[in-house]
Amino acid sequence: MGERGESRNALWVSAHPRSDSLTATLRDVGVARLRADGWSVDVADLYAEGFDPVLVEEGGADVRAEQRRLLAADLVVLQFPLWWYGPPAMLKGWIDRVFERGFAYDVPDPTSGRNRKYGDGGLAGRRALAVVTAGDRAGSISPRGISGDVEDLFWTLLHGTFWYTGMAALAPHLITDVHGIDAEEVHRLGAALAERLGTVDVEEPIPYLPMTDDFYDHSIALHPSVAAGLTGAAAHRRPS
Amino acid sequence: MGERGESRNALWVSAHPRSDSLTATLRDVGVARLRADGWSVDVADLYAEGFDPVLVEEGGADVRAEQRRLLAADLVVLQFPLWWYGPPAMLKGWIDRVFERGFAYDVPDPTSGRNRKYGDGGLAGRRALAVVTAGDRAGSISPRGISGDVEDLFWTLLHGTFWYTGMAALAPHLITDVHGIDAEEVHRLGAALAERLGTVDVEEPIPYLPMTDDFYDHSIALHPSVAAGLTGAAAHRRPS
Repeated sequence: MGERGESRNALWVSAHPRSDSLTATLRDVGVARLRADGWSVDVADLYAEGFDPVLVEEGGADVRAEQRRLLAADLVVLQFPLWWYGPPAMLKGWIDRVFERGFAYDVPDPTSGRNRKYGDGGLAGRRALAVVTAGDRAGSISPRGISGDVEDLFWTLLHGTFWYTGMAALAPHLITDVHGIDAEEVHRLGAALAERLGTVDVEEPIPYLPMTDDFYDHSIALHPSVAAGLTGAAAHRRPS
Repeated sequence: MGERGESRNALWVSAHPRSDSLTATLRDVGVARLRADGWSVDVADLYAEGFDPVLVEEGGADVRAEQRRLLAADLVVLQFPLWWYGPPAMLKGWIDRVFERGFAYDVPDPTSGRNRKYGDGGLAGRRALAVVTAGDRAGSISPRGISGDVEDLFWTLLHGTFWYTGMAALAPHLITDVHGIDAEEVHRLGAALAERLGTVDVEEPIPYLPMTDDFYDHSIALHPSVAAGLTGAAAHRRPS
């Protein structure tokens, strides 16, 4: 069962210029698995759909359409190849344009008078999963790796985007060492992704702290007593 | 004197859709200061120039032109408003397309047989400065702030992009609390930026470790003896 009762609607957003890419292959496997499990899946292939990622002015008919797709989803999957340790401009611009103020964050709450964000944004009640393929070696994206821990590396997406807009951030599904892999390995990667997706509606999200007075002060820094002495992403998680 | 002897060539790249933006105002102040100090400055206003940030295929005449601008520069300034804790898609796509493999990184070194990157990429010898404007409160971007330490927040740009391609990464020039500021405050911010730029060629860059066997193992993780016990960005800096 999804977080929103019986509905199991997923929006799968992918951004890769080639239709014969590993991204496309894994997307097809992932979407098929979700559908086999009873999910209704809306597939947004941003390159194929010709999305314009350049924000010039707010709004636009295409932005409204993407917002409707988001609102219909219980699960949002963002799938992309890792370019410069982040999403391709195509996907970054989809976020820039679609996740508008008043829609995805800073949604006025008439009861409290606050603008809703961080665990309580306009997309609250949804889960978000990043599915990422990287040429990097597995060890290079690790706590002591040259690119650092995966949750630190994806901090701006996981905490600054997913959680900021109210979505429960799942641990990224990161696939490394993708250069020069053969068909057998592609099959294995697809099977592992499908297995992950089989429990995507019940796995525990990253337990980021909500932006409430219990944890944060007026400058939006942690109270000294919260995660005392800690810095970095770990300081913003509920202790396990 | 610049790092490359007597030459003082700067490339100032900015990405904001409006010509009456704070970004544009601060860019004009910054460029004027550099020119007054004897720098030759090439200004790349990506929106005004109509750069296409969507990578479809590698290369293209526009990419070659941008690469020539980079190669001519001793100092590269990337200026942008902070959108979703990163650069706008327009600037992300400029990096996606222009910082090509074989040009900016993985440049073959016939002597060692290695592909040059991390402090030794195709852009080695240059300094890189991010000038960023954000609506966030100052305290929220701090070691205990909800968005974390500035060098962690910009890790993918500072270490994963600047340093990866060989450029010496300067501490970001981050300007917070920009919503609703008045003309006097804009003037003050411009003066502070100009002062920073006055010593941009002699300030100490972030002392990231080079990717050599002295520091990293074959999986590109730190040797246990290097920054023993540390994780995060701090582990990849030379001890002060």
